[in-house]
Formats: sequence, C-alpha cells, structure tokens
Amino acid sequence: MTRIFIYDSTLRDGAQAQGISYSVEDKLKIVERLDALGITHIEAGNPGSNPKDLEFFTRAASLKLRHARIIAFGATRKVGQPAAADANLQSLLNAGTDTVAIFGKSWDYQVTAILRTTLDENLAMIGDTLRHLKQRGKEVVYDAEHFFDGYKANADYAMQTLTAAAEAGADALVLCDTNGGSFPDEIFDITRAVCARFPNIAVGIHCHNDSEMAVANSIRAVQAGATQVQGTINGLGERCGNANLCSIIPNLQLKLGYECIPAEALRHLTSAARSISEIANILLNDKAPYVGGHAFAHKGGMHIDAVVKNPVSYEHINPELVGNNRRVLMSEVAGRSTILARINAVDPDLTKDSPETRRIIDKLKELESEGYQFEAAESSFELVVRKMLGRYKPFFELVEFKVIVGEPCENDVNSSCIIKVRVGTQEVLTVAEGVGPVNALDKAARKALERLYPALGEIRLTDYKVRVLDSDHASAAKVRVLVESTDGHTSWTTIGVSADIINASWQALVDAMEYKLVRDQEARA
Amino acid sequence: MTRIFIYDSTLRDGAQAQGISYSVEDKLKIVERLDALGITHIEAGNPGSNPKDLEFFTRAASLKLRHARIIAFGATRKVGQPAAADANLQSLLNAGTDTVAIFGKSWDYQVTAILRTTLDENLAMIGDTLRHLKQRGKEVVYDAEHFFDGYKANADYAMQTLTAAAEAGADALVLCDTNGGSFPDEIFDITRAVCARFPNIAVGIHCHNDSEMAVANSIRAVQAGATQVQGTINGLGERCGNANLCSIIPNLQLKLGYECIPAEALRHLTSAARSISEIANILLNDKAPYVGGHAFAHKGGMHIDAVVKNPVSYEHINPELVGNNRRVLMSEVAGRSTILARINAVDPDLTKDSPETRRIIDKLKELESEGYQFEAAESSFELVVRKMLGRYKPFFELVEFKVIVGEPCENDVNSSCIIKVRVGTQEVLTVAEGVGPVNALDKAARKALERLYPALGEIRLTDYKVRVLDSDHASAAKVRVLVESTDGHTSWTTIGVSADIINASWQALVDAMEYKLVRDQEARA
Repeated sequence: MTRIFIYDSTLRDGAQAQGISYSVEDKLKIVERLDALGITHIEAGNPGSNPKDLEFFTRAASLKLRHARIIAFGATRKVGQPAAADANLQSLLNAGTDTVAIFGKSWDYQVTAILRTTLDENLAMIGDTLRHLKQRGKEVVYDAEHFFDGYKANADYAMQTLTAAAEAGADALVLCDTNGGSFPDEIFDITRAVCARFPNIAVGIHCHNDSEMAVANSIRAVQAGATQVQGTINGLGERCGNANLCSIIPNLQLKLGYECIPAEALRHLTSAARSISEIANILLNDKAPYVGGHAFAHKGGMHIDAVVKNPVSYEHINPELVGNNRRVLMSEVAGRSTILARINAVDPDLTKDSPETRRIIDKLKELESEGYQFEAAESSFELVVRKMLGRYKPFFELVEFKVIVGEPCENDVNSSCIIKVRVGTQEVLTVAEGVGPVNALDKAARKALERLYPALGEIRLTDYKVRVLDSDHASAAKVRVLVESTDGHTSWTTIGVSADIINASWQALVDAMEYKLVRDQEARA
Repeated sequence: MTRIFIYDSTLRDGAQAQGISYSVEDKLKIVERLDALGITHIEAGNPGSNPKDLEFFTRAASLKLRHARIIAFGATRKVGQPAAADANLQSLLNAGTDTVAIFGKSWDYQVTAILRTTLDENLAMIGDTLRHLKQRGKEVVYDAEHFFDGYKANADYAMQTLTAAAEAGADALVLCDTNGGSFPDEIFDITRAVCARFPNIAVGIHCHNDSEMAVANSIRAVQAGATQVQGTINGLGERCGNANLCSIIPNLQLKLGYECIPAEALRHLTSAARSISEIANILLNDKAPYVGGHAFAHKGGMHIDAVVKNPVSYEHINPELVGNNRRVLMSEVAGRSTILARINAVDPDLTKDSPETRRIIDKLKELESEGYQFEAAESSFELVVRKMLGRYKPFFELVEFKVIVGEPCENDVNSSCIIKVRVGTQEVLTVAEGVGPVNALDKAARKALERLYPALGEIRLTDYKVRVLDSDHASAAKVRVLVESTDGHTSWTTIGVSADIINASWQALVDAMEYKLVRDQEARA
C-alpha cells in the first residue's frame, strides 16, 4: 500500500480565511486534534509575518506528539540580500522546528512584475535560502508558488526553479496551484513531468478551490506520482479555500487504497472536522462530503425506501468508516415511512394508512410552511405527535411573563423577567435577572418550575442558535430558535418560530423542559 | 466553439436538499431567473410524486421564456404493468411539457435487489416507457441512474440499458453518478466509451458531490464527449449536493472555450446565484467559487500588496467576467495598506507610519477579539475611525431605554419600548410598540430622532442578521448583529456585539442612523 503524507496547513494557509483569528490556545488544541488523527505534517504559522506565532512555537515544542512534526513557514530571502541577513529567515530559525517550509516564485511573470528582479536572481534566492537552512540542519519543504501557471507560461523556467531547490537540498518539492485555476488533466500531466524529472525527491501538491476542483486536482496529482498532499481541514482558506483534506483522505484511503492516516483514525475524521471547526469558530458546511451533517442524510421518499432496503443504493461509502451517521430526515417530502417511524416511537400500533398518520403529516406541512424545521429538532416533533395523539398531559401552564430590558445598566445584567406559571391549582410567581432578555426568561422559567419538578435542575443548555428567516422584514423578521439541552446522559434539540425572538425562545425552552419531563415519566412507567 | 447544453435541476433534484421547500411562486421566479441567464433546459418537478407540481406546470406554461424549455421528470413504468396504465406516467403527460425526463436503472444489482425484478424486465420497462412517450410526441431525456456504479459492476448490462433507451427513441442519454462516488479518470473513460457506442445521440452527465469532485467529474465528461451537463445552481441538492452549475459554466466557458450560455449572460451569474439562493432561502456559501462573497476577497497582507500591483497574481479570472467583485478585507492580518485605504477615506493625510494609524490598528484588533467583524460592516468601521480621529460629533445621546416584552399578548405586538434621547439641551421622550423587543426599540429610536433629524425618515432596514458567537454559553451567549440599511440611494451595513441581543441590536441601529447623518453632513459640506 503506497504511503501518502498528509501535510496540513489549517493553521497557516487556513488562517487566511475570512473570519479566522486563532488564539495561541486554539492553535495548540488544533495541533493535538491533528496529531490524534495521524497527520504527519502540520504547517503551523509564519513566524516572520506574525510575531504572535513565536509564542505558539515555543509552547508547541513541549507538546508530546505521536505522529506529527510541526513546521514553520516563510519566504525565500529578499532580493539582493544575503540569506544570513534576512530577518524573516532568522525568525523562521528561531521558531526552533526541525522542518521548515519555504515558498518561492516559479512563474517568470511573477518574478519580473511582482518581485521586480531578474530570473537569475530568483533562482539564486531559492538556492541561497535552502542552502542556508540545510546548513543549519533543517528538513526543508520547498513550495513552488504558482507552479502550474508558471509551467504553462514558461515550462523551462518553472523547472529551473525546482532544479535550484533540488540542488540546494530540498527534501520535498511541492507544486502549488496558488490561484486555484488549473484543471485535472493539466495537473496530472505537469505533475507527472515533474516526478519524471526528479525521481529521487518527494513531490507534493498544494491546490486551491477557486474552480471547485481542488480535491480532484489533488487526487490526480497523487495518481501522477505525488506522495505529499497539502490542504486544510474542512477546506479552510483564503477566497474559496484550500484543498479539503476531509475529502482527500477518505477518497485516497477508502477508494484508491493509499495509506494516509492509520485505519482506526479514519473513524475519528468526522469528530476531528467538527471539533476543529468549533475551535476555529467557523460553521462546518452541512453539505461537506464525508463529514457534514447532511452527507448521509436522506430526504426524498423514494430514496429513503431504497436506503432502508439497502444502504449501498444511495450511499457511496458506509458512513461509519469516517465516523459519520446515516440520517433519515423528516419533512413534507420525506415520505410517509420516515414520518411513520417517528410516530411509531410514540404509538407502535399506528400504520401508514391510519387517519392519525395523515393528520400528523398535514400538521407537519402546516408547521413547515410557518418556518419550523423538524429535521434538526426531532424532540419538538415528538411533542407535536404526542399532543396530536392525546399522549400528553401538560406539566404546567404559563399564566404570563414580562421581560424588562433597560439601558444603560450596571455590568451586563440589563434584563429581568417576572413569570407566573400554574401547575394544577398551584401558582408560582417568581423573578430572575439575566444578561439579555432570553437569559432572564430562561432563568426565571427554570427557577419557577424547579420547585415543582426538581429533575429540571439537571438540564443545562448547550447550544442556542438563531436564524433570521425572512430577513427582508428587517427587525420584524421571523426568527427560528434552536435550543440544544443536555441532562448529562443524552442531549436533545427543540425549536421555536416567531416574529419575536423572545417568543421563539420561549417555545424552544418550554419544549426542552417538557421533553425532559416526558422522558423521565416514561422511564419510570 | 462547441455548444454545451446546460440542464438545470435546481427545482427538481435541488428540492431534495435539506431545508428546501419551494412554493409555486418560488419556482416560477427561479424559472425566470434561469431563463434570463440563458439556461436551455429546466427540469422543474416530478408531477407523479408531488401533486403541488401540477399547479406549477399549468402556470409555467404561460411564461414567455426566451431560452429555456421546461421539463417534467418521472420514473420508468412500474414492474409488470403496461406503460399506458401507469398513473405516474399519466401525471407526467398531464404536465403538458414538450420535453420529459425519465430515469431508469442501469446497475444489475439495483434491478434485482431494489426493484426485485429480472434484468430483462428492466430493459422492457425502459423501452416501453420511452416508446409510450415518443408516440405522444415528446422529446425524451433518458437519465441512466447509477450508471457509473452499474458500468463498473457489469459494463455489458449497463450498455444494454442505454441501448434499450436509444432504440426506443431517446433524444439524450444522461449518465448519472447517483451516489457521487466516482473519480475523474473513471468518468472520463466510461463517458468516452458511451460516446463511441452512441455517436448519434447526445450524451449528458449528471454528478453528485459526495466525493467533492462533481465539478471536475462533469468537466472530464465534457472533455470525453458529453454535450449536456446536468446540475443545480449553487450545487443545491440532497446530501452533499449536485454538480454546481455556477462553477461548471465559467470553467467550461472561460477556461476551455465551450459555449454554455450567452457571453453577456455570464456577467449575471453572480446575481443569479445570489437571488436564487435568496428565493430558496438557503444561505449562499461565501466560499463558493466564482459567485461567493469571498471568492475574490483578499486578506493576507502579502497577497493584497501583490493583488494591488497586478490582480492576476492571486486571481484566476477577472471577477467582473462573472459579475462578482474584488474585495480587500479589513482585519488584523489585512496588512496596514488595506486599513490605511479605509482611514484615508476619512483623512487623506495620514500615512502607514502615522501614530493615528497604529492606534486604529490596535483598536481594530481589540474589537475583533471581542467578536466584531468589520469585513462585513465597513460603515461601522468608518465610524470607529472618525471617533478615534476626532472627526465625529455625536448627533444624540441615549439617556435611557426600557423595553417590556409580555406574554400572552394580543396579535403579535408583545413589546413596547420607552426611550429618552438628548440632543443638545433638548430631551425627547417617546414610546413605540413592536413585534418583539428589537422591532419596538427600532421604532421608538427612529420615532424619537426623526423629529430632530427628518432625514432618518428615509432609512429602511433591509436585512437583520444574528449570529451566536460562543453558543456553548447557551442563552447567555454573545451575539453579533448585522443590520443593513438603505436610503434608496445606497445601502450600508453596521454591527453590534453583546451578550444581549437587544444591546447588540441597539449598537447596530445607532451606527446605521449615525452613518446616514455623517454622510448627509459631508454631502452638504
């Protein structure tokens, strides 16, 4: 089995993505996740351009890593200066890593128009820089920026730049499609030509996704002989992103039989992708292949019946291989069988053709047209089913609440909520303060109800999401609130929809509490 | 120039995407946008599985379309039944379109395991169905479901299914990578084999993105001889989505010289992609190639200097060719030159090295670490700069506001806001009601200030977005609010960040009003 080395640049090229701003803590956490996944190369920063990175490299040196080496990244020496006098190169050495990556120019046009120097001086910059680093005992990865554009413009000069790097001792030559504009056939042919010219040096590939072909281009480069693939987790990166390692790794390993990471680590790919996107504070695209929330989700009625009969019908791999799950979605086009499965969880005796089933489907359509989305809030859907089937006795009744928000305020506690709830003949009136109106409401409601239902004290809200549904209504737009709760054993998600965020939050909070109470009741029964 | 026919399935396969639920109005609007873009084939629904679609087809028949034909989609006849007795086929005919698409099975395993019939009966189902439709004068597109998986399992049988369709008069044979698991080299080889076997029938390609290679696979199929490309706008579709026409069209037309849509229409690609995603109520991914908000956005300092020197450095095409724009982002890593450009808009005399520039950059970093993101809210950033440079005189001062939200309420107006503002020595106290607290606050603030600044009456809020920043703090999580405003001439976006959504909204609303007042003041000066 051919080994392919995965070179992750989530912390360096990924940091160029809009909205990304890592703390040193974030970077250390991501290194640990990548190492646990079996990634061998982690390009972690550019100490020359970002002084904050030096603190990171100092602290990273004491991490105990099982698979990965940390790599510092920088440019070739400046035009007309000796490498030994280059402050950026000195920063790179100060990072103290065993391996460094150096990028240099491959495209004649870039040399003359951007660097504004001669083609020979550019070759000297590459050679001098690499020799300087090799003399200091470093392993050196050479990134040939704009290689494919350069090769297409002047193949001979592009090859000369690689020769300059190779003769100076480069341990790997990485071909970069910096602007992301190249096509799979070009990538294949050019990579093959480079591998033939430099049979004794590892060749790598570094693609960007501007033509939406970065994954395919990386795969084609491997098929042409590249043994190192550069990319980022979730394709994070400037503009349209870098090549997405979360797709490349399973494509190579599960479909083409290359070895990229340990087989058992592949089952942690989905959780690594999700936790790294959390740390980076970037929403993971649900549609992301292999690791996205929808990657193995089935909605169409026809598909679902087939998937239930045999998953290979509409799944290209078994989702468990990458640690993801099959999901069967509930929605008006989901098909009766999907919805029936949910209904049967409440009442196993109902069938596809029961009038109750039809009524519930009609109700589902009506709620969806109002903006509810039960695909992500199955607990709220279960409560709808219970209510329609008469399998639900209200635990409490809201008499009223009033939330008061005032500015200016002392510290952040600007809201208070007065709430009155009724349970049987008993009324509880209470008040709580909070940071903002939703927090005050949440605290007041639980304070009132915990007296009567102590189990509610176990609930902790773990996520709170707001989506504006019809944003052209501006501040009177309808919003959808999703609340995720846990009691330490399981977690569940509930939904509320309203033109008022307080009302939508209230619906979701009430469902969260009622769902807990219903489940506890059933567990006792 | 070879013509490639673009076959859009945003309304049919795209409707399988999670979260999509089109109204008939939505579908009609999307058809008009696609037609204006020069798309020739619009697959618009499955009348057999969705009765709502019949109303659509009836109304669509009276649209005046310049380029597109509308296509109804359905399956081959049922096992063991004559085509004439098939209710779904009858629905398909009732849709009244000149062109219909029929999908059938190509993979022997699917026939025996899912359809549970013989290989011969499947061939008969394909032939009978197509003859039935051809006899009724229809143009018929035949979609060979799972063609690539089928070909890899049993090439001979897969070819037999196409022969059955061809002999029954199919006008196009479309090869589907239904599970999205195929690789570019396989797609190329198999498509080439099919084109060689059926030299007189148009061959199409229909890819899914489960391996993140749908765009590359579609391109490779065209390079192998396919002349019809199926896909969806923004890659909308089940699981990981369908092949993204917004990338395929410019890849083919700008890079490979095929003609897909009229040259002048290509400049409307970005606006079509954005408006269709609005109609579908799906957030367009900012990273989307060609049409995304970040596709030509530059953040890294090094890149920006090069892009300014010459755009070809880090852009694979001129963004204007697809109607998109270059954006230079403001952020702590943006590099001083970007931020300076914004600062110079307020004070042209400041330089990179002015102490004021340094102070503003420090402030920017501080605000970004608190959760502000000025990349999308440049108007708020301009106000920050003005305040720091002393080029700003406050227009009003908030004395206090109180927002009261109560449930239960009559209709949706559950909130009222009392506000007191001061302008010079004058105090205005007023009150307004609203749907939810933000709406009440917005209305009260403008009611109070319009008396003093009538120009504020021209402002209309056009968008209101909420993002929960650290959702693990649940209902006390920090939120970022973005407000987009217009006065009919221009529009501007402002930001607020707070643990309280009311406070965050207040900041953004105040910035929106102040920005308008500052600009009007300068226009008069």
